[in-house]
Amino acid sequence: MNLKKFSQLMIPEIEDGIKSTIRVDIPDSFPGLIEMMNYHFGWLENGKSQKSQGKQIRPIILLLCNSICGGDWYKALPAAIAIELIHNFSLIHDDIEDQSELRRGRETLWKIYGIPQAINTGDAMFSLAQINMLKVGNEFNKQIGFDALHILNETCLILTGGQNLDISFEKETKFSLERYLLMVGGKTAALLSASAEIGAITALTTESNRNVLRNYGHALGLAFQAWDDWLGIWGEEEQTGKSTSSDLISGKKSLPIIFALDKGGDFSRIYLSAGANQENFQELHFLLENCGAKEFTENIAKQYTDIALKSLEEIQVSDQNAFDSLLELTDLLIKRKN
Amino acid sequence: MNLKKFSQLMIPEIEDGIKSTIRVDIPDSFPGLIEMMNYHFGWLENGKSQKSQGKQIRPIILLLCNSICGGDWYKALPAAIAIELIHNFSLIHDDIEDQSELRRGRETLWKIYGIPQAINTGDAMFSLAQINMLKVGNEFNKQIGFDALHILNETCLILTGGQNLDISFEKETKFSLERYLLMVGGKTAALLSASAEIGAITALTTESNRNVLRNYGHALGLAFQAWDDWLGIWGEEEQTGKSTSSDLISGKKSLPIIFALDKGGDFSRIYLSAGANQENFQELHFLLENCGAKEFTENIAKQYTDIALKSLEEIQVSDQNAFDSLLELTDLLIKRKN
Repeated sequence: MNLKKFSQLMIPEIEDGIKSTIRVDIPDSFPGLIEMMNYHFGWLENGKSQKSQGKQIRPIILLLCNSICGGDWYKALPAAIAIELIHNFSLIHDDIEDQSELRRGRETLWKIYGIPQAINTGDAMFSLAQINMLKVGNEFNKQIGFDALHILNETCLILTGGQNLDISFEKETKFSLERYLLMVGGKTAALLSASAEIGAITALTTESNRNVLRNYGHALGLAFQAWDDWLGIWGEEEQTGKSTSSDLISGKKSLPIIFALDKGGDFSRIYLSAGANQENFQELHFLLENCGAKEFTENIAKQYTDIALKSLEEIQVSDQNAFDSLLELTDLLIKRKN
Repeated sequence: MNLKKFSQLMIPEIEDGIKSTIRVDIPDSFPGLIEMMNYHFGWLENGKSQKSQGKQIRPIILLLCNSICGGDWYKALPAAIAIELIHNFSLIHDDIEDQSELRRGRETLWKIYGIPQAINTGDAMFSLAQINMLKVGNEFNKQIGFDALHILNETCLILTGGQNLDISFEKETKFSLERYLLMVGGKTAALLSASAEIGAITALTTESNRNVLRNYGHALGLAFQAWDDWLGIWGEEEQTGKSTSSDLISGKKSLPIIFALDKGGDFSRIYLSAGANQENFQELHFLLENCGAKEFTENIAKQYTDIALKSLEEIQVSDQNAFDSLLELTDLLIKRKN
């Protein structure tokens, strides 16, 4: 068993589970909600392509961590489904908040159905996630269900806290690395951390394994985001599928930019007075690299990658194949090209 | 003890509980979230008026039902706080969805902080509600906590289903009473029903009492909404504080209008072709009453009031004062003047 084989087993189960909860847990009397959820996941006739269905990284991490700790991942599926629903609820609301018109190659939910219906469907998906996490209590015992729900909802508070900072960032001119890490910690790392930890607790594993996996997930999230921010400036356009200038032009407060603004100097002066545009892009791009932002971002990515990998060394492994597959997935996420 | 005395005891406890969960359960590192929640509840300096703080009908119903069934309402406070947070989360999102600029005499959250931050704060409040309902499991036992969380999240699905219908209604020209009841059942009755039922289960009462109170809450919600719709057309302006033409002019699909449209005839013809405006308002108002919509709405309100009161007759009462106070509150809600 390697990552590919695990994924081939897990992904259809996760997808079937989500399709089933949409069909069974939402009353038939609300077909509008059911249609919108299916549209979002790319399961309506007009959106039935592989590309439109997400990579399911979080539920796969949850199920692999569960296996590593000696669990039967099939029994942890309701938790994996809940995590994927939470992720997608946050995507639906983020797309409205960021005015993003495209997601997974298709028009976003709000673009098709309008903002009011999209906010509301996100809320429904949030409830559906909770209902699936409640099933964890039935599958194992009530205490495990409670722990999982606690983690889930505390994670959502941190997620919204991170999003609150991200939205505020757009209007601010002073930034610190500390605030950046808090924001990314909320927006990216919290849910990865929760996925790994819930994988552990649904395996009824040791407190130590649980802590190790929580820390692993958190560090993985920070490394992943630092690397994503690096790609947003220096990634090859043909590999990422988006203009590498995009994070610079769009005004996104990514890690290299936070670093350069914090440092002051020419980049900061031009960026804060004129912003980035097609005319000064080459100059800003040069100044950004020249002030050490590229190296700094690489170092941060490496530092958190090391923490993530170091955490994994401390784990007591019950399933070596699952462990190797998690390492493989970690590698893909951190060294990914798109 | 009458309703006034119960309220004087309960309201400060509910308010303190909400203030405390905002302060304690949201990490200090996200002051933006904390500020926005306090603004919504009218607890910032610029919004500290009694009027801005809601009536807390749902948590009071929950606590009274708890007492009626022999519970110690103080122990059920986390559930009451969760219900009030869910109600307010839905108000925050509804105000965005309906583009409402005022709530409780102050500007709505999105009007002050923008739509993206308001969507996000609503999401955070949803999580906070779940965290408070989890405390019910600690206060009693995990099974009670699970039951309460199940009811809460199934209620939220019905709530969003009702809202989905309500938003769709605006663009439609065909309506049925059945669809109206489904919409109102979701938007108004579901949370009142959940409040009453969770009050019962946190008193560890009989299955019968639990069912009686769930049915009572549902019927109360439908009666309340029918009466509210009646007031929106025929209420005295000085009593409701809004123009009685407002529901007619605004195009709201309230019960009398659904009835008249379903019936066809002159009202339906004019309303569907020209809409209601200041010029044809008098004529439409006359036609509405003339086709029987006023009487029909009164009958629906009475019918559900009877069901609500009939349900209460079947209950095994442990605290007569709490029961009398619930009757008093029911009376206020159904015969209320504003």
